[in-house]
Amino acid sequence: MITTSYIAYERGSDLGPKTHAINPATGTVLEPGFAAPSPEEVQQAITHATSAFSIYRNTTSAARAAFLRAIAEEINADVDAIAARGQLETGLPEARLRGETARTVGQLRMFADMLDAGTWLDARIEEAMPDRQPLPKPDIRSMLRPLGPVAVFCASNFPLAFSVAGGDTASALAAGCPVIAKAHSSHPGVAAIAAAAIVRAALRCEMPAGVFSLLYGSGMEVGMQLVKHPAIKAVGFTGSFKGGKALMDAAAARPEPIPVYAEMSSINPVIMLPAILDEKSPQLAEAFLQSLTLGVGQFCTNPGLLFVVNHNGQAFVEALTTSLRNAAPGVMLNASICQAYADATELVAGEPGIKRYLSDASVTHGQGLPQVFVIEAKNYLGSTKLTHEMFGPASLIVIGSEEEITQAMGELEGQLTGSIHGTSSDFHTYHSLIHLLEQRVGRLVFNGFPTGVEVCHSMVHGGPYPSTSDGRSTSVGTMAVNRFTRPVAWQNCPQELLPQELRNGNPLAIPRMLNGVISIL
Amino acid sequence: MITTSYIAYERGSDLGPKTHAINPATGTVLEPGFAAPSPEEVQQAITHATSAFSIYRNTTSAARAAFLRAIAEEINADVDAIAARGQLETGLPEARLRGETARTVGQLRMFADMLDAGTWLDARIEEAMPDRQPLPKPDIRSMLRPLGPVAVFCASNFPLAFSVAGGDTASALAAGCPVIAKAHSSHPGVAAIAAAAIVRAALRCEMPAGVFSLLYGSGMEVGMQLVKHPAIKAVGFTGSFKGGKALMDAAAARPEPIPVYAEMSSINPVIMLPAILDEKSPQLAEAFLQSLTLGVGQFCTNPGLLFVVNHNGQAFVEALTTSLRNAAPGVMLNASICQAYADATELVAGEPGIKRYLSDASVTHGQGLPQVFVIEAKNYLGSTKLTHEMFGPASLIVIGSEEEITQAMGELEGQLTGSIHGTSSDFHTYHSLIHLLEQRVGRLVFNGFPTGVEVCHSMVHGGPYPSTSDGRSTSVGTMAVNRFTRPVAWQNCPQELLPQELRNGNPLAIPRMLNGVISIL
Repeated sequence: MITTSYIAYERGSDLGPKTHAINPATGTVLEPGFAAPSPEEVQQAITHATSAFSIYRNTTSAARAAFLRAIAEEINADVDAIAARGQLETGLPEARLRGETARTVGQLRMFADMLDAGTWLDARIEEAMPDRQPLPKPDIRSMLRPLGPVAVFCASNFPLAFSVAGGDTASALAAGCPVIAKAHSSHPGVAAIAAAAIVRAALRCEMPAGVFSLLYGSGMEVGMQLVKHPAIKAVGFTGSFKGGKALMDAAAARPEPIPVYAEMSSINPVIMLPAILDEKSPQLAEAFLQSLTLGVGQFCTNPGLLFVVNHNGQAFVEALTTSLRNAAPGVMLNASICQAYADATELVAGEPGIKRYLSDASVTHGQGLPQVFVIEAKNYLGSTKLTHEMFGPASLIVIGSEEEITQAMGELEGQLTGSIHGTSSDFHTYHSLIHLLEQRVGRLVFNGFPTGVEVCHSMVHGGPYPSTSDGRSTSVGTMAVNRFTRPVAWQNCPQELLPQELRNGNPLAIPRMLNGVISIL
Repeated sequence: MITTSYIAYERGSDLGPKTHAINPATGTVLEPGFAAPSPEEVQQAITHATSAFSIYRNTTSAARAAFLRAIAEEINADVDAIAARGQLETGLPEARLRGETARTVGQLRMFADMLDAGTWLDARIEEAMPDRQPLPKPDIRSMLRPLGPVAVFCASNFPLAFSVAGGDTASALAAGCPVIAKAHSSHPGVAAIAAAAIVRAALRCEMPAGVFSLLYGSGMEVGMQLVKHPAIKAVGFTGSFKGGKALMDAAAARPEPIPVYAEMSSINPVIMLPAILDEKSPQLAEAFLQSLTLGVGQFCTNPGLLFVVNHNGQAFVEALTTSLRNAAPGVMLNASICQAYADATELVAGEPGIKRYLSDASVTHGQGLPQVFVIEAKNYLGSTKLTHEMFGPASLIVIGSEEEITQAMGELEGQLTGSIHGTSSDFHTYHSLIHLLEQRVGRLVFNGFPTGVEVCHSMVHGGPYPSTSDGRSTSVGTMAVNRFTRPVAWQNCPQELLPQELRNGNPLAIPRMLNGVISIL
């Protein structure tokens, strides 16, 4: 029994090289095998996406909203199958898989609501002034339009929310872009369930063939063929820095460079200010540990670096290490992630001045164990090995003066998030640290921890390079749709040729900028 | 007498290599000489810009609006000097230089008005829901924030509107980014006047030193030092494809890649449909010729390619060539542009099947002469040399069937603009050509020509690659500010630490998205 790619509405051949998912909890090879598409099949998927774009780009917002809601419904109907297969493929617990499915469904519906509201279009109208001197002013109307077919690479750590029917796919489809998804080798079975749901929804909504395809196979072959193809106009990716950078380089080297939206690595610094440490170190330690160990630390927002400012941090570290002694190891997503976690933590453990509070290795019996390392700022500042992501439940605590932490912050690369804990008086005293943090991150968290990314209109899940390839964007929340659009202006266009969104009388009742003023008139 | 760079509020040394402007009408070398900055001086400008950013990014919108208005005022006060020096350096007539100054001043004021209105911020608030199940919803607020110091490269063909105080500078300063401008060697004297005006305005408004610098010197040395420097966070450029692509490649190869907004080459296709040609070929020819020859054809929106669809085009071509016989040659911006125009037109003239209606060479006595070439679509489709920009008053007319023109359009690269002329019935019959055109361009013009770019909120002066480096942006109009920003989110941030724009009660009365709904409450 072989599962094959979806080439538009057809199934690909089963002749290509097969791969199998592996249960990370047991090491068992899971059936069925998943066949890689041939280069010709990849080309077919692209040809279908190109044809689909000429139709899909001109669908109404209402039609695309109905399509997204149909996908949500179909995925919801398969939640039992997703939870069952997902546990086998990823080691994630059932509750997490059900929760992530609900989040994915909610995300699709959020984009559908956004399409109904028309808030994403940046619709603008400037009316003509035929009598203006020295030259008449033309009628000019603009709004965002879709870029074209988008390649979406699924993430290892979110089999639903950042995979086949995740945020990249939902936002690209909302914008009017066909999607070709590349499955992740860790959870091909969940990918098959999600793809089948999208295909059923597309057929139900009479969407053009090619609005969606799912490809198995390797990132280097199938993935690169997609990214280098002239018909692909943008790329969404969530994964390692190495993988994301390879896509960025390939996209920049094309005859027509295209945008790559890669969410890569982030260590999500947390700053602890002195007055709040005096006030409640044990509670802070407990909350930090919860954030650090959530999902065995396998979140892009995992807090991998914590700065203790002008404080010895003793009570905090003691509370933390006491709790850590009871921490249980957890199954990680796959064997290579587990090995990378072991390697990254051992690298940190070997650095001069590092204090390791727990004697355990970071991986026992093939499972990841939470780890906390402590170092004085003066030793941290000299090292080049301590600012890399340890993907998993490990964090480095740096204790130093305001001057030292300011220097450390100044040297830090771009991050998805930055968190700061303080009392009112702390925030007043250390105001400049907040401003420094803002310049390094996409999201600033006050008196909280970075895990738990709210899916909403105001979310920014994207920070300066190298946390993402393009810090001007987000991969979570409705602003994500902007990534797959460009503005187009119509000058002196007859009413009947304008998109409905820009016609006189505002027939869709959407917010528009009319001669510089935003209104819904 | 040597003129030197502005390194923040100081003048650079006069020890570097000097260059002089040359009067393109006479070939006369103009005084004074302009001294290139040393690499140390370039570094100083960047260091000042970096320091300035930490202050300037936190100025209020009102303060930046006042600064932009002060620049407008100072430039306006120097319009006589600009017109006098500009004529010597560029060969552009006085009226054009005064008009372009007015446009530049208006553009600065438009961005000031935009800052007052707050429409550019994309301010979004999602209120907390502490009782939400299974998890509380945090308070999340986001808006656009400045990227950091921006390098702006001045254009040859717009000494004011796309140069020192032009659209790139105005939009970057509006966003909160310091600017380091690199003067164009064709008009260093106008650059000096504009820079002095900006510096006076910055001093008057008590802006931090380094909010603006102007550098002379070569693009390869001074320019590349800027683009490769880690403190520079974005680049604005208007010029050749070769120059823009070199900047794109350098920016993509940095350890931290940065966005380059390069407006490069465009041939701005114009489609003529049959019924309107039957109706008024002579008038269309006259209007086309006006657009073609405006400013000796030295606009990025010059109509360099015209498709005649399902029509012999005889009356149109005859009217055009008759008028062309009376066309006068014009002084071009500089000798190398003039030579490039001669080379590009001769290349086209030598292609098989090209009909050249005027026997004159395209350059006479060092001046550019309007040129029109005609070819049948079947010959055009075979050639690879006929889709390059002829920067100057030259255009290629391609006559063919709808099928042939559809194929030609399909093969066309990205363009700034596309224009289409037709009657209502033409537009109905050739609807698919309009959709094809939309996918190739940033601005669609109906029954008009592309020259004359309105500076307004809805303008899109940016098209798919290679017309610009990044078709998701515009270099004219208020949307240009988006290029120099990124979204930042604040989670559970105390009111007093939030930017004013995001505080409860909307103290600045700007449009905001509140829980998904846009309002000014």
